[in-house]
Amino acid sequence: MARNFNELRTKMSPERRERNAQRVKEALEAMPLEELREARELTQTQLAQVLNISQGAVSKVERRADMYISTLRSYVRAMGGDVQIRAVFPEGEVLINQFEDLARPKEDTAKAS
Amino acid sequence: MARNFNELRTKMSPERRERNAQRVKEALEAMPLEELREARELTQTQLAQVLNISQGAVSKVERRADMYISTLRSYVRAMGGDVQIRAVFPEGEVLINQFEDLARPKEDTAKAS
Repeated sequence: MARNFNELRTKMSPERRERNAQRVKEALEAMPLEELREARELTQTQLAQVLNISQGAVSKVERRADMYISTLRSYVRAMGGDVQIRAVFPEGEVLINQFEDLARPKEDTAKAS
Repeated sequence: MARNFNELRTKMSPERRERNAQRVKEALEAMPLEELREARELTQTQLAQVLNISQGAVSKVERRADMYISTLRSYVRAMGGDVQIRAVFPEGEVLINQFEDLARPKEDTAKAS
């Protein structure tokens, strides 16, 4: 059976939830993909080699305002990380694990080189 | 200029990062979309009404292994939440804010009713 948000909530005191939320806020930077790549000290060309696509295709992905979750995951995995998707509600948040085993074929990540 | 992961890391002590990671782990449940909807105590029919699509289209979204980020966001917003996307690396995590202003037209969320 589905767990109820109230059940999730009662696992932590309000003070603790507030503290956690504050800490996560302090800890996390927000950035677009291009900036993330630069923070990882990778060039488009290096990422293109890992993904086996052209540099232009990497550039195109970075300029997209929307993409398949699998495409995003391939891009982030190529940088050595992984994608985590959360649904955030006023009452709390959950991880969405429906997409976790996706590894999109490279020809779908962008136009192949 | 892009922020470097080392800079991000030095903002917190290793002990504090470890504590935060542990707390987030304790706090978060992971589930697929269907289970999330049930935890929100919503039926497919109710969600379909909010999204202005058919109940069958909601069912189809819930069975997908991949979808556009905008589609996922529409679905979660219809439940009163929002989607947060993180890139997770051994050295830390960042929010990816490239997709945040997406509100996919309802006809793209699934086949319209």
